[in-house]
Amino acid sequence: MDKTEERAWEIIQFQGTESSVKNDEVTSEWPLTVVLNGDEFATIVCSPTDLNDLLIGFLASEGIIRSYTEITSMSIDDYKGFAYMTVDKKLDDIRNDHSKRLIGSCCGKSRQFYFKTDAKTAKTVYSRLSVSVEQCYALMEEMQQQSEQFMRTGCVHNAALAEPDHLLAVRTDIGRHNALDKIYGHLLENRIAVKNKLIVFSGRLSSEVVLKTAKIGSGIILSKSAPTDLALRLANDLQITVIGFARGSKMNVYTHPHRIMEAAMD
Amino acid sequence: MDKTEERAWEIIQFQGTESSVKNDEVTSEWPLTVVLNGDEFATIVCSPTDLNDLLIGFLASEGIIRSYTEITSMSIDDYKGFAYMTVDKKLDDIRNDHSKRLIGSCCGKSRQFYFKTDAKTAKTVYSRLSVSVEQCYALMEEMQQQSEQFMRTGCVHNAALAEPDHLLAVRTDIGRHNALDKIYGHLLENRIAVKNKLIVFSGRLSSEVVLKTAKIGSGIILSKSAPTDLALRLANDLQITVIGFARGSKMNVYTHPHRIMEAAMD
Repeated sequence: MDKTEERAWEIIQFQGTESSVKNDEVTSEWPLTVVLNGDEFATIVCSPTDLNDLLIGFLASEGIIRSYTEITSMSIDDYKGFAYMTVDKKLDDIRNDHSKRLIGSCCGKSRQFYFKTDAKTAKTVYSRLSVSVEQCYALMEEMQQQSEQFMRTGCVHNAALAEPDHLLAVRTDIGRHNALDKIYGHLLENRIAVKNKLIVFSGRLSSEVVLKTAKIGSGIILSKSAPTDLALRLANDLQITVIGFARGSKMNVYTHPHRIMEAAMD
Repeated sequence: MDKTEERAWEIIQFQGTESSVKNDEVTSEWPLTVVLNGDEFATIVCSPTDLNDLLIGFLASEGIIRSYTEITSMSIDDYKGFAYMTVDKKLDDIRNDHSKRLIGSCCGKSRQFYFKTDAKTAKTVYSRLSVSVEQCYALMEEMQQQSEQFMRTGCVHNAALAEPDHLLAVRTDIGRHNALDKIYGHLLENRIAVKNKLIVFSGRLSSEVVLKTAKIGSGIILSKSAPTDLALRLANDLQITVIGFARGSKMNVYTHPHRIMEAAMD
């Protein structure tokens, strides 16, 4: 596994409708699986820096240790993304309290969920939807205006379901994933076909957000925030067009630019 | 349980060193426990709006349902914060894949962890540390300068350990909780006493962040982002001074202002 803090990524950067190809740097999301006293304990999605600090702090946060001296050994296999730790106590009690799980970079999920359920439900998206750059700017603007009343507290995320020329529904939540789940639920409840729809989003584009976009079945996710490298690699595989940093009349297209009309005409 | 989107909170607002008492609105974090086919399935920390959409979308995201018609009943007890759902399938398979857990508003944790481990490790903080308003502004400024190199990608959070007049360590991660865990690990590894230290943070102050601050044992958390109502109620109980929206020469003090020197002199 490539353990870098940032990864180079070729993007199409728009300013207005002018596009240029640039090399951008995106943040790494790096999965680190903790094996504690011989048993798999958790997978932490993290930035691959200060990993000793992270592992010690994680065990303390989980209530496994109270002091550093309780850790009897610790080693990290960078290549495999595994940390092997032993602590000087019986783990029977711990194992009753904890189940293997994934501590996501945002909203954590159990490990099983992440790998098993996702494989069942996240499918490659064969959407033929396309949008223009101006439509992207207008949709982001519209979502921000509609959500202004919720932004007073500075603490919530928005997700919207949209057709290229207007928003169909906006949902707000303190949790990024909850906002997306509210859109997903709205779609299902009202039997809305998603193939010609895109998702507009205020939050960071982590791997989990891209997986959720694929489950929902939308081919385009447009966000005002930044993507991660793992999100982009997943989006490449799942045929999802990822647009980030959509602010005012600027935006970056990271994957599958054929769905952006100006880009296709270049 | 009080199901409101926002809650009034009396704050001390600083502009420079001038303070005024204001009534502010803070976003609600609302725990909703999902009982599925009679068994407790998960607790979602959410904003209490569009709960039907959330519940349907959540079950679909988890791979439990593929269409709305698979849900045979759904009712919400607002007062208790419980949702009762039944689906038209056997849940034996599901229960092997899932364990009860808490889907946090940011970083999810298993339910058991949240209530049991936290009770063991999050203690009331009797720190006598105090800081001046200018020191708060300077610490936030210093953290942002130190982390500038990491901010290129627009995708990471910072946490720092500080004494009132300077930062001792800055840690960066794609996950807010990981950044705090890295600080916690650094403290433990180097046997640093925390009573006279504060935490400087870039991320939102959710209940989980306040709990982690209490576990670490710091009496003050200073962030450039917003707090939630649940975080503030916990901070009140745990004797933690919460400072939010620290940007430039402005900041809001939400709880236990006696640790802020100018406030104490009022």
